[in-house]
Formats: sequence, C-alpha cells, structure tokens
Amino acid sequence: MSTPIQYQNLGKSGLRVSNVALGTWITFGSQITEEMAEEILTLAYESGINVFDTAEVYAAGKAEIVLGKILKRKTWRRSSYIITTKIYWGGKAETEKGLNRKHIIEGLRSSLDRLQLDYVDIVFANKSDSLIPTEGKADPFSTTSAASGRIFRVEEIVRAFTYVINQGWAMYWGTSRWSATEIMEAYSVARQFNLIPPIVEQSEYNFFQREKVECQLPELYHKIGLGTMTWSPLACGILTGKYEDGIPVHSRAALKHCSWLKEKILSEDGKRQQQKLRELALIAGRLKCSLAQLAIAWCLKNENVQCVVLGVSNSDQLYQDIQALKVVARISSSITLQIEKILGNAPINGSRIEK
Amino acid sequence: MSTPIQYQNLGKSGLRVSNVALGTWITFGSQITEEMAEEILTLAYESGINVFDTAEVYAAGKAEIVLGKILKRKTWRRSSYIITTKIYWGGKAETEKGLNRKHIIEGLRSSLDRLQLDYVDIVFANKSDSLIPTEGKADPFSTTSAASGRIFRVEEIVRAFTYVINQGWAMYWGTSRWSATEIMEAYSVARQFNLIPPIVEQSEYNFFQREKVECQLPELYHKIGLGTMTWSPLACGILTGKYEDGIPVHSRAALKHCSWLKEKILSEDGKRQQQKLRELALIAGRLKCSLAQLAIAWCLKNENVQCVVLGVSNSDQLYQDIQALKVVARISSSITLQIEKILGNAPINGSRIEK
Amino acid sequence: MSTPIQYQNLGKSGLRVSNVALGTWITFGSQITEEMAEEILTLAYESGINVFDTAEVYAAGKAEIVLGKILKRKTWRRSSYIITTKIYWGGKAETEKGLNRKHIIEGLRSSLDRLQLDYVDIVFANKSDSLIPTEGKADPFSTTSAASGRIFRVEEIVRAFTYVINQGWAMYWGTSRWSATEIMEAYSVARQFNLIPPIVEQSEYNFFQREKVECQLPELYHKIGLGTMTWSPLACGILTGKYEDGIPVHSRAALKHCSWLKEKILSEDGKRQQQKLRELALIAGRLKCSLAQLAIAWCLKNENVQCVVLGVSNSDQLYQDIQALKVVARISSSITLQIEKILGNAPINGSRIEK
Amino acid sequence: MSTPIQYQNLGKSGLRVSNVALGTWITFGSQITEEMAEEILTLAYESGINVFDTAEVYAAGKAEIVLGKILKRKTWRRSSYIITTKIYWGGKAETEKGLNRKHIIEGLRSSLDRLQLDYVDIVFANKSDSLIPTEGKADPFSTTSAASGRIFRVEEIVRAFTYVINQGWAMYWGTSRWSATEIMEAYSVARQFNLIPPIVEQSEYNFFQREKVECQLPELYHKIGLGTMTWSPLACGILTGKYEDGIPVHSRAALKHCSWLKEKILSEDGKRQQQKLRELALIAGRLKCSLAQLAIAWCLKNENVQCVVLGVSNSDQLYQDIQALKVVARISSSITLQIEKILGNAPINGSRIEK
Repeated sequence: MSTPIQYQNLGKSGLRVSNVALGTWITFGSQITEEMAEEILTLAYESGINVFDTAEVYAAGKAEIVLGKILKRKTWRRSSYIITTKIYWGGKAETEKGLNRKHIIEGLRSSLDRLQLDYVDIVFANKSDSLIPTEGKADPFSTTSAASGRIFRVEEIVRAFTYVINQGWAMYWGTSRWSATEIMEAYSVARQFNLIPPIVEQSEYNFFQREKVECQLPELYHKIGLGTMTWSPLACGILTGKYEDGIPVHSRAALKHCSWLKEKILSEDGKRQQQKLRELALIAGRLKCSLAQLAIAWCLKNENVQCVVLGVSNSDQLYQDIQALKVVARISSSITLQIEKILGNAPINGSRIEK
Repeated sequence: MSTPIQYQNLGKSGLRVSNVALGTWITFGSQITEEMAEEILTLAYESGINVFDTAEVYAAGKAEIVLGKILKRKTWRRSSYIITTKIYWGGKAETEKGLNRKHIIEGLRSSLDRLQLDYVDIVFANKSDSLIPTEGKADPFSTTSAASGRIFRVEEIVRAFTYVINQGWAMYWGTSRWSATEIMEAYSVARQFNLIPPIVEQSEYNFFQREKVECQLPELYHKIGLGTMTWSPLACGILTGKYEDGIPVHSRAALKHCSWLKEKILSEDGKRQQQKLRELALIAGRLKCSLAQLAIAWCLKNENVQCVVLGVSNSDQLYQDIQALKVVARISSSITLQIEKILGNAPINGSRIEK
Repeated sequence: MSTPIQYQNLGKSGLRVSNVALGTWITFGSQITEEMAEEILTLAYESGINVFDTAEVYAAGKAEIVLGKILKRKTWRRSSYIITTKIYWGGKAETEKGLNRKHIIEGLRSSLDRLQLDYVDIVFANKSDSLIPTEGKADPFSTTSAASGRIFRVEEIVRAFTYVINQGWAMYWGTSRWSATEIMEAYSVARQFNLIPPIVEQSEYNFFQREKVECQLPELYHKIGLGTMTWSPLACGILTGKYEDGIPVHSRAALKHCSWLKEKILSEDGKRQQQKLRELALIAGRLKCSLAQLAIAWCLKNENVQCVVLGVSNSDQLYQDIQALKVVARISSSITLQIEKILGNAPINGSRIEK
Repeated sequence: MSTPIQYQNLGKSGLRVSNVALGTWITFGSQITEEMAEEILTLAYESGINVFDTAEVYAAGKAEIVLGKILKRKTWRRSSYIITTKIYWGGKAETEKGLNRKHIIEGLRSSLDRLQLDYVDIVFANKSDSLIPTEGKADPFSTTSAASGRIFRVEEIVRAFTYVINQGWAMYWGTSRWSATEIMEAYSVARQFNLIPPIVEQSEYNFFQREKVECQLPELYHKIGLGTMTWSPLACGILTGKYEDGIPVHSRAALKHCSWLKEKILSEDGKRQQQKLRELALIAGRLKCSLAQLAIAWCLKNENVQCVVLGVSNSDQLYQDIQALKVVARISSSITLQIEKILGNAPINGSRIEK
C-alpha cells in the first residue's frame, strides 16, 4: 500500500520511527471495542506506522492488555514495530506509583505481562517525580541539601531505567512531561555515573501549546541528541473545529468527567481560540484538507518533531489523519507565515525550523 | 479501614514506607503460632502498614518461612508491600556467616527460598563486619595497612550488595547497627567504584537510647540521603512500665535466657529508669494513652525517623500500638519539653527536630 | 591429517584463529546444496580451519540456517571452532536494519536462532552507519553538533555490542568495512564509557585493493591491538585468471545480477588488470602453483593479516586453496619484489611487512 | 570431632578458609578409586577442612567429575564448603586453552558441568599467559607496543574473570603461578577499568622453594590484600624422606613419566637436599612428629600463608597430615632458628613472619 508515512531517526538515536505513532489513550480498553482496536492497529501497521504508544495507566492497564492480545493474534515480526509504554501510576498502593526503583521495575514487569511481550522498545517516565522529601525545615548541615535531595532522586531513577534496559526489558528510555532542566539533570547524572541517558521527551504540541517544543527541546536535541515525540496535536479535539458553535451533545467535552474541557472551551480564552480556528479553517480549505489535517500537518512540518502520536476512535479517522501527511508538502513558507499571523503566539526565542 | 498510618520517602530514596513496620523478631516462627502470625500480619496490612521486617537469623530461618507461607496464602499484590531481611548469621559453618561475598549471595538466596519470593525490597547488612584480618604485627610495607585492609573489606561488601541488586534479588540495600563512620566508608567506596550506596540504617531508638539517631543519622540524611528505620521503641518491654514493681513471673525478663534483661532492670541504672518511667506515665495519662503508646509516639515525633519497627505478640497489641500514631499529633512542644526534662539525656550536638 | 594451517592471535586479543577462515557468502543457502556445504565444512574443520564466517544478510538468513543445521549434526565440541556473523541488513522493515540498539540486539538474537547456537564468537557491525541525522540546516546552538551527532550514534552502537557480549551472546565484537577513523571513534567511546572495544576489522584485500590493509590497519594494530581479517582474496574470481579472454558463459560475471562485475572486467582498468594477471601467472608457474593460489598466499604473506576468509563452491576448490598456504613459504623477498613491480600499486605510506 | 583445623580470612577478602585445603591433583580420577576419593573427602570435610581444590586439567577433567559425583551424593550444604578450580588447559583444540575470553568462559562452563555445580568459589588462572603476539619485528609506530600488547591481553583476562563472576559462576578469582609483576598488572587493569581484582595467588612453597612466598607475596598482601594459598608442601614427596637411600621401586619417582623427579633427586643438588632432610628429621624426632608433618607445619607457621593445599592417596595419610597442624604450636623460635640454620636458604629481603 502506497502511503505518505516517512521515517527518521528519533533524535540522534539510531531508532527509525514513522512520523506518526498510534496512541491508545482513552480508546484501547475503554471507548472502543477490541474489534475496532484491531481494525485501527491493522490499518496503522499496514500503512507503515511502526510506533504504538501506550501506558500502564491507560484504562488502568486494559489498554496494554488489548494491545497485547491483538499483537499476539497478528503474525507481524516483533522486530518490525516499536512499542512504547509509560510508568508512573501503576496501582493504588503507596508503593505502586512514582519513580522509585521498586515501582519502575515492578511497573514495567507488569506492563510486559499485560502486553505479553519480552520487552518494550521505549519505556517512558510518565511524569517527573516531585515527591522529593520536603526540606523546608531548618537544615543544620547544608543550605544546598534540597538540590542534593533532587540529585539522589534522579540518580535512583536513572539507575532504575538503566537496570531495566540491562535486563533486556526495554531498548531505550525516555521522559514524558519533564522540564528541560529535569531532563538535563537526568542526562548529567547518567554521565556522572556512566548510566544510560534518555533518548526522547514526549511533550504536548499543537497550535495553542508551543513553548516547550519550539523553545526548549531543539536545544536539547543539539546538545544531548534528545528526540521529540508529541501528543495532542488536536488539543483533545478542540482543533477539529467541532466546538465552533458550542458543545455538541455527543462530543467528548459533553462527558461528565470532561467538564474541565467544556470549561476551557467556553472560557474567554477558548472563544478567542475558536475565532482563530475559523480563520485557520479557511487556509485548510485552500489546501483542500480539513482543519484537523492542517493541525496535524503543521506539527509534522516542525523539523524538530520526529513523531506525532495520534489517537483515533475508528479506522476512518486514522485514514483521514494519515492523509494529513500529504498536506505537509503543501505548506509553503507563505502559508506558514499566514498561520503564524493568525496564531500570533510564536514563542520569543523559539526555534521552529520547518522541514 | 480508616487508619492513622502515614507514608514518607525512606531517606531521600523514592521508596514510600509506612511510618511503622511490622517486625518478626522473637515472634514469627518461635513465640507465636502461625495462626497468630497470620492474624497479626493481616491486621498490619489492612491497617496500611506496608513494611514487614525479618532476618535470616530470626528463629534460625523459621521467621522467614512463616512470613513466606502467610504471604503465599494471601492474595496481596507483591508490589503493594515491602519485605526487608538481614544477612549476617546464616549457619554454623565458618563460611555461612559474616559479610563476605559468598555469604551475602548464598545467604540472600536462602532467605528468598524460605520466603518463597523472587526478591526482597531491602536487604540489610545485619552488623558491620569486624572480621578484618588482624594487622597487629609489624608491617614492613605500610603504616596505613590496617585502614587499607578495611577498605578492601568494605569494597567486597558493597560490590556484593550491588551484585544482588543487579541480579534482581533486592531493590535496595541498607545497614543495620553500623557506625556513622562505617556507613560513610560504604558510601565512599560506592562512589569510588560506581557501585550502589546503601539507602537506610536500622538503629535502636527509644527514651534511653538516643545518641546515634539524634546526633549522627541526621547528618547522614542531609549528606548522603540516608533514611532511618528504628527498632526497640519499647526497649524490650521495659518502656511498657510492666517492670515498675519488679519482674513479673510471665514476663520476658523472667525467662532463663533473658537474664541480661533482668539484670539490667534490677541494676541501679535500671531503677533510675523505672523512676523516670513513672513520671512519663503521668504525661501519658494526661494524653489519654498508655506509657507504651507514648514511647512509640515519641519515636515517631522525631522528624528524622521515617519508620519504627514494632514487634508484637498478638493482634490486640498491634492494634494498641497503631493507636499510638494518633498520639503523635497530641505531643505539643510543651509536652516535648516536659519529656525532655524528665529524661534528662538529650545528647549534646543532638538534632532532634520534631514533626 | 597433516595440514599447512597455522594459528595466531587475532590482533592482540587472546583468540587463536586459523590463518584461513571458511566464508559462506553466496554459497551456503544459495549456490550450493546443503550436502556440498556439509562436505566443504567438514573438510575445512578436519584440515584445521577453525573460523566459520557468515552474516544475517547472506542468502537472507539461509546461510546461517544451513551452517547451523550442519553444526548441529556434527559432534564437534562448540569450544573447538569460532563462529562469526555480521549485523546490519536484517529485514525489510525500517527497524530491522542499521546499527541501532534495537536491530543489533534483535538481529543477533535472530542469527542465533537460525544458527541454533547460544552464542557466536565474534559479532561484526557489517558496515558503518551513515544514517546520522542530517545536520545541514542552521544550528543555532553549536557548530560542532554534526560531530557530536556522530558521537551519540557511536555510543549507542558500542553500548549495544557491549550489551550483547555481557548477555553472553557473543565473545567479542568487530567491525567490517569501517574506516580507520570510525574504528578509532568506537575505541575512544569504549574507553570514555568503560565499554568493550572492537578487536578486529574485516576488510577487502587483494592484489588490486591494498590501501586500507597496508596503510591504516597496521597502525590500529599497534595502537589499539586491532586484528585484521580479510575477504575477497580473489576479487570475486577476477584473480583466478578466468576472465583473461573475456566473460565465459557459466562464470559469475555472466550472471544477470552481476553486470557490475562484467562491466568492471571489460573496462579499461579491467583490461590493464588482466595484463598484470598474465604476468603474475608466470610467477605462479615458476612457484608451481595456480594464480589463485599465489593470490591467496600473497595475502597471507602480509604479517598484519591474521586470517583470510575464503569462499568456495566445492570441496576440491577448498583443498586447492588450502594448498596455497604451502606457497607462502616459497615467496622469497626476490619474488615479492617482482610481484610489487608488476602490480605497481604499492600504497605510499604503506606498511606491508612480510612474514 | 575435635580437630586442629583453624580458619582465617583469605588475604584481606572476607572468605574464611581452613588452613589446609584438600587437593585432587594426580589422585582424584586417576591414581585412586572413587571409593577412596569419597573416604578422603569425607574425612577432610568432617575434620573441618572447607576448601577442595581442583582444575580442569587434572586427569583431563576426571578429577572434577569424581569430585562432583561425591559432592552430589553427600548432603553437605553448598554454603558450608569452598570449591576452587583452575582454567588454562581445557582441550586439544587451539581455542580450548590459554587465557582468552572464549576459553575462560567455555572452560569454566565445562568445569561447572563436570562438577555438577552452579558456581565455584574461586576460579584460578592456572598460569600466566605468555601467548602475547610477538612484536619482535620493526614497529614503525611505537617502541612501547610490546608493553601495550601485554596490557590488551591482561585487560581481556580481567574482563573475562569479572564477567564469569558477574554471571554468578564464581564468587572470586585468583591467579596460580603468576609473577608478582603480572599480578600487579591484573590489579592495576582492574582498577583502571573498574573490574574485579584477584584475591589470591596459588604458589609452590616448601623447605626448598621459598623465594616468591617469602619475598614477594607479603608485599602484595599489604598493598592489594592478596591472599596466599600454597601447594607442594612435600615437594612431590621428596620431603617425606623416602628418597633418603635412593629411589624405591614403588615410589612416584620410579614411574616412567616422572623421570624428571628421579633426575632431580639423584642430582648433586638433590643429594645436598637429602643431607639437609636427614638433619631436619632429627628435629622432627625431637618434636615427636614425622619429617612430612614437620614440613607441613613449617609452611603453616608462616603467617602470610593462609591455606596449604595437601594431596593424599588415602585417608590415613590425610589423618597424619592433619595431625601436623598440632605441631605448629610446638615450633618455638629456637626451633625455627635451627631449621633456618640447616636450610641455609633464607631469601635476602625475605619476610617470613611466624605465627
């Protein structure tokens, strides 16, 4: 099947990833049936997508179970695709969460059991760990102990990820939603103790969330070879334009537990975003694509983004998203300028270099 | 079940421990039946206690066997609790004891067999190793060889604990009854050879035994992130007040092999302690708790103590001990001062910071 | 069986290799039957050849399968021979090739499965990896990032080979067709991170391809102990003299997919080589050996070459090739000079020291 | 059973060895029956000897097989004794000997198979490796390459022993018949690359072979903590005094393949030794022990010797040898002086400190 999927190295690592990944958040193991999950995964694989992204916390483990069952049924060679999962929230007990050695090891072992795999390709720390022992009280020994407390915690984390890689349970490790400073701490601790540094950060990136991917991660790419995977290219559906006239009854924002999304959309800020989206829709029209396709293509157009994680509810949606890849080539520098003018939120000191 | 158990990081590690641990010394595999052991363990787990402490030497291995059998019967997730054991005295043969590589490895393997577990969470060196080759005779090569002899021994020990962690047989390692200097030696050797440092010291701590926990371990917490677990909060029962009027017939001190305890109680020093206990009992009365509960609460009130190991003979006793946790909040700074005045043994250079 | 096979250390490693190795390229799993493969392998082993060389890419894995099946049938002790394989092109998927951690590990695991072995003795990187992320575009952070990109890639490669050695899947690792600079990068990264350096480079070497083996590898032998294995001593058959009068109908150069070979032979340069071969044939005649035997003997005469890989289509050919070893002793310094005069291509700065 | 066996740390390691070890050279698997081997081993174990010494080369592997079979039958806990084996000569193939990574790993694996054990306690390099690539020819790059060649070889050896220890196949490693300089090279390479240093040298030591144990090893004990095990306390039987009047018909020196021993005994030097032995026998008489017992006791009297390896042909002989331990206490400083006067071979710069 001819497909617009392309491949590049993830950061300066040797791992060749497709420019889009299939995510399983909300969908696998919860919103969609196992049959639909299989249909989506099959289309993704056959289209050339080679990265499937999940996490121990997605649907409380069921996302991994469904993904694992489908992979088991298929006869795809294990070496032909990349599985990524994330560790942080694993269970209710005090010891089943966070980035301590016990949970990183036990959490990943449980993920592998659910996935029925011997190893994942990338294991992510799903959040930085703020559970540093409080040091607010008087410290008679040192004024820098808060900082040194952090270093002990980072050492434990980097040692634990190095351990699971050396056990053969993961090929690489990465961070998700860590600050640039935290990533540099991990890199520096890895160098100090000759441990394995992370190769990739997973970060939110879309029209309205640009700061980290455009300002901070390019520097980390150049300095420590860090790759960038991004998620939420449609900002939880906002960028599809479906909330242009309010909250449709069957939309995600109408769901009870998504009231935060509804509030965001109906806020003043949200209304300003809807106006911008109306203008961007005109550009999409001229490029003969949907607003959602433009939003995805715009993410991919950023040279520093190697892989955009997409979540879909059905295979048609995935098919449409994949077509967005063809739009990338149509975004001329003139179009880029028009989009930038509409958004009006280019970060100062940003470094969005276009492909 | 609502419970006063609280959790904190053990030192600057990421491991979240309950503020009390259930110990198995004297009880599991010896003084109590397996049924009572199960009743106690169940109450502990259901109350939120997540640390169960044992050692290869307890009841000559039977403590571990009983603990392992109960854990096997229960359906608690392995990730929801923390098992700690200790290595030093493993058997009668010359090679089955001490902190050499052979015994650390063989001893821990045997402990795991008895516990029917794949790994413990913390393995402790149950004593520092004084079996350093004697160097009393003339040494024609160096005047510092005694010191360097120690370093070789410490290197072997730290390498062996790093090895069992890298084999996946333990998550962390700690020391028990090591001096601050010995712990710093281990830390320094770990840094020198890029091995894994210990994360915790287990130390005796109660009204009458304060020096190490209050003077030395806080410094190690700040400098190398070391956590503190304490044991003997009731000083082998002395602090329950039951020896106020001598040695009751069925008390532990009346046992033949505990004559040292009897002697201690009946000594001049012991009598002075009984006097102080009578005064402390008055404070306990005002706080509407028993003297034992006050003794436990007082340990927990020390901010540098993350976890107090409790040994109990029946589940009622454990229930009473857990209630002691509620007393902690009632110990005002005025109460603290009164206790300090009665004890009159605050260490110079001490650093007892209250929660 | 008396045989002229000799043994030496591969570079400054302790591995004792026979001076010729049996290669499996083109033959095992493709041009020859399994029966013939077994006949050849048996003759090789019984003649004292202890190195059998293959690669994951040879006959798309079938070379390893055939080699593995024969070794399984034979009762030779695993410790009595050396298996070498090479990793780079493993499959069609984007993730199944190149020198990334995922493919080095998955590729070697698959090779071991096909070979039915627990480990190989040397695993080679079958090519240097040019898939370095392009850095042509403006880099706002550093002018040296292209270089540092390489370093990240080399670190990943050396870490992965160290990993497979520490897993027990290979005894040593080497490079194939890497430049001297690339090998030094790998060595330097190994020293920087205390990883395992490569012990050998596999390189083309024959009358008409001399530069790397004579100019660059001797320096690497002296500086970093690197061994040299060479292949294509007959330049794909050109040096047998069979193309003296054009392209015979059943020769390899007549095959459709070998048109490059045909073109090379019929080029001006090719014709000049044929003329030189006619002169060399006269020397061979005087030494009572074939031109092919002289070509092989001349490779072995280079003191820096520890092992010459031979590929043969039948056991007679192997027998003849082994006889070439007896010719080595007959190449006097006067003969050497005559050969040098005919070839006229001794590299400047070369370092061909004769045995 | 009351026994004169004593225990000490092997060098500055934590391993507690009995002061005599039972060796298996010549006897197990060759000169004695399996029944006698079992009788000897049982007496040794029950007398408190906890070190059993063998090698892959002894009786071409049969010594290990017999030792393994007996250990299998006995119900002694694995942790109660120490098994040592040695690697160097493993088989006939070129790749089955020497101190390269391939043979160290394959050799030890084969030893473990024969011994039916998961691990040995100490694996020895049975000889230093002189198979350094010859560098006699002109070296255009460096005048120090011969030295650096050695370093590469030593690095490979220390890496391989560290590997087998990290695999759990050995607890410690040591050297046998290495020079002090070679041991220091291994130690220095271990420090350079953070590998595991050897803990013990096994060396010949008796009345007529004193240089290394008395002059060189004490320094290594003080500087790098090296332990000393010695063998041949009776110099292949010479020190029993049985060759006083020539070569008895059934003695070892009368055996065909031991003609070197016969020659040594009948040489001028040999005759001088017989004269000294006659004088020493008088001292033995005064101490109420045999000459052989005196010879063994004299080895043990050296404070730097932690363990003397004894080989015996039957259990009576072992019983007599063990009684020698009681003689140690009877060797007063006056006796020591008399012995020294008779021997007249105290090494200059020697450091024989008596227990």
